[in-house]
Amino acid sequence: MSLDAVLARLDADLPAATDRLLDLLRIPSISTDPAYTADCDRAADWLVRDLQSLGVEASKRDTAGHPMVVGHVEGDGPHLLFYGHYDVQPVDPLELWDRDPFDPELQDTDQGQVIRGRGSSDDKGQLMTFVEACRAWKAEHGVLPCRITFLFEGEEESGSPSLVPFLQENADELKTDIALICDTGLFESAVPAITTMLRGLVAEEITLTGPSRDLHSGMYGGVAMNPIRVLSTIIADLHDDQGRITLEGFYDGVPELSDAIRSQWQNLNFDHKTFLGDVGLSEPAGEKNHTPLEQIWSRPTCDVNGIWGGYTGDGFKTVLPSQAHAKISFRIVGDQDPDAIHRAFVKHVEDRLPPDFSVEFPLGKGSKASQMSIENPSFEKALKALSDEWPRPASYIGCGGSIPIAGYFKDLLGMDSMLIGFGRDDDQIHSPNEKYNLESFHKGMRSWARILHALTT
Amino acid sequence: MSLDAVLARLDADLPAATDRLLDLLRIPSISTDPAYTADCDRAADWLVRDLQSLGVEASKRDTAGHPMVVGHVEGDGPHLLFYGHYDVQPVDPLELWDRDPFDPELQDTDQGQVIRGRGSSDDKGQLMTFVEACRAWKAEHGVLPCRITFLFEGEEESGSPSLVPFLQENADELKTDIALICDTGLFESAVPAITTMLRGLVAEEITLTGPSRDLHSGMYGGVAMNPIRVLSTIIADLHDDQGRITLEGFYDGVPELSDAIRSQWQNLNFDHKTFLGDVGLSEPAGEKNHTPLEQIWSRPTCDVNGIWGGYTGDGFKTVLPSQAHAKISFRIVGDQDPDAIHRAFVKHVEDRLPPDFSVEFPLGKGSKASQMSIENPSFEKALKALSDEWPRPASYIGCGGSIPIAGYFKDLLGMDSMLIGFGRDDDQIHSPNEKYNLESFHKGMRSWARILHALTT
Repeated sequence: MSLDAVLARLDADLPAATDRLLDLLRIPSISTDPAYTADCDRAADWLVRDLQSLGVEASKRDTAGHPMVVGHVEGDGPHLLFYGHYDVQPVDPLELWDRDPFDPELQDTDQGQVIRGRGSSDDKGQLMTFVEACRAWKAEHGVLPCRITFLFEGEEESGSPSLVPFLQENADELKTDIALICDTGLFESAVPAITTMLRGLVAEEITLTGPSRDLHSGMYGGVAMNPIRVLSTIIADLHDDQGRITLEGFYDGVPELSDAIRSQWQNLNFDHKTFLGDVGLSEPAGEKNHTPLEQIWSRPTCDVNGIWGGYTGDGFKTVLPSQAHAKISFRIVGDQDPDAIHRAFVKHVEDRLPPDFSVEFPLGKGSKASQMSIENPSFEKALKALSDEWPRPASYIGCGGSIPIAGYFKDLLGMDSMLIGFGRDDDQIHSPNEKYNLESFHKGMRSWARILHALTT
Repeated sequence: MSLDAVLARLDADLPAATDRLLDLLRIPSISTDPAYTADCDRAADWLVRDLQSLGVEASKRDTAGHPMVVGHVEGDGPHLLFYGHYDVQPVDPLELWDRDPFDPELQDTDQGQVIRGRGSSDDKGQLMTFVEACRAWKAEHGVLPCRITFLFEGEEESGSPSLVPFLQENADELKTDIALICDTGLFESAVPAITTMLRGLVAEEITLTGPSRDLHSGMYGGVAMNPIRVLSTIIADLHDDQGRITLEGFYDGVPELSDAIRSQWQNLNFDHKTFLGDVGLSEPAGEKNHTPLEQIWSRPTCDVNGIWGGYTGDGFKTVLPSQAHAKISFRIVGDQDPDAIHRAFVKHVEDRLPPDFSVEFPLGKGSKASQMSIENPSFEKALKALSDEWPRPASYIGCGGSIPIAGYFKDLLGMDSMLIGFGRDDDQIHSPNEKYNLESFHKGMRSWARILHALTT
């Protein structure tokens, strides 16, 4: 079947495809906040209808949380599964957005046109690159190129609590020859890439309670221990002066890079000065004996994602608060055990609690890191297809983020995954003013058309 | 003139006096929050009208911030100045209040009746004890007992920015023989007291900025320094493992207690187990070589009054924030220099800033500690009057809080102050569910009648 006709149709249909994406972006499907439950449902309905318009037998499937969207279309050749997620991150601090995050628009910028709005890059825009490739294929050829199963999740940004049970209960239905996942990025905004190494995540929200009520610091200061001071010590002690994480046994299971991978990464000529300079930084801050690229792709890290306690409004209030709170997460790699790391973190905190203090660990969840096995010939075919579309040849890369889905596909369904995406480092995902370059969207759908062609001919 | 008649009238008029206080408490005069500017103005108007009803020539006086209320009444004998403040602390966390903080009421509790509401103890209820004593005196005798100047401030809870200029510009008008200040407490809720030792305050709000925007911790974690981690280290390093504050030169000017004062305080038999037990604590947390009472009254301290940064809403967001914030204050004693301490704090922070980080110090203000000279015979007269009213004899005490007004009266007007108040340790000032015992209100106004009588006969 002709690839050129499909590519030409994608070019011609770009304005309409953009309008469809803007329509989906207008739905504020923030999965972590119960206030947006109905919106998540609405986004799922939107996708069911869109898949049905392609002749896909699609439906919304209930879970304990937000629904899954599952669709099937029959065909010859390999059986592919495509995964994306329709939920998005919260939008605060709202005042830092230049416009309503859910009133998206196409904007002219000095890097060309971009689609601005929450979810444009993570992950609705990326998800739609595959759907649009299928739409053009269907329009040209009357059928999709092969047997395809679609799986769209609505809880990726809130820890995917329903994903594992859903995969277990529907394993026969969802197992295919290979999974395609579109939730990653280009390398340095230019080189197309297949991500083969992903970090895992251990996340916890701790609440320290000291005094039984908020106190006046003039009356109790000094004699009553301040929970913010205790929390600060707990956080300050998480790293040593070499940038290493101090939890007991934390580095158990962290692999050393092979010489082959290390030299391949050196060849990428990663420009950490530009990477950091784009966000106002000049000095890499991680482990001193690892390069910045190694730090991001292959080393475990710890970050405080939020902290709060006491009086945080305008003006001054000399309160000594009863409680202090922090959201803390660890990115893990290789064979690091999320449960062991959570236990070591609990011990780290409890060892630093003064008398009379208590602490809560409500989450306690984690996911392992993933490493793809690239022996499957589909990887080389996809790499070549990507190289044909973009000005520079494609590469296998690592990724600092955590996309546990690939690990679940492997462990629960015995299925390899190819992580291919078109996001750029400056897309500001999880931040105000998220955007997706129109080029990413356009070349992204063209890339999928090429990959579908490569995998089915 | 007869004291007994005044006391009897105060007893008879207590329900009406309570209604008047509830009326004043309904005005949400939160000085630190610009949203309540009109309410602060309304509280000042209320007091002007109330003083005028006592025959006082009273008026609202403009400042750069909230207005002062000043009143004068002529008379024989000593010229007294009475000071109180009509502004109140913010009320958050609002959800911890059992009722609307500005819908006050009289409640029955196991410690008798209390007046519940923001400002009931700090300082509207205390301020009104003096006004009610004057009202009863005027009703019985047709005139007030002596020449009195009233000064009510509206910015005490927000650092009193207009106070010093106002005192300087109106020094001739406001200088009297002695000042009476009602903004302190009983000793251990039972012993009436004149506070002769007050700590000063240095307060600052720091904002650390690292990356120029919020980042995704999966993409930048490790390689980009997290401002919350830097802030935590800054806070953790403020104390050593003996509970001492580590700022360079911090203890310069901190006096050692005289043996006389030390033994007087030992005689008070301060029960720190009850003091701490009331707020869910058992172990004092301050400097290890000082008793809890010394820590509260005579030692400098440092507290974090608020901290915030990153994502603090429901659920989890793996953000690496651009900024982190903290409100930090120091209580200082003796001859400690607030400016020097602020400079040492700035150095402490700047020494710990990583490359590329910046920090703001918007406040930079402080007040010295105060020590009253009790040679003035008014002190002994007031001590005896208090002892006559309450079941246990009155005592000179220290106070952990900061009431810079006494220092300003001394430095700017050359005037001694007597700090006499009727608050209790469990009044929850600056906290949810603030209250003032009806006994404090009732015996407070009776105490002022006795003190006025003692000072003028």
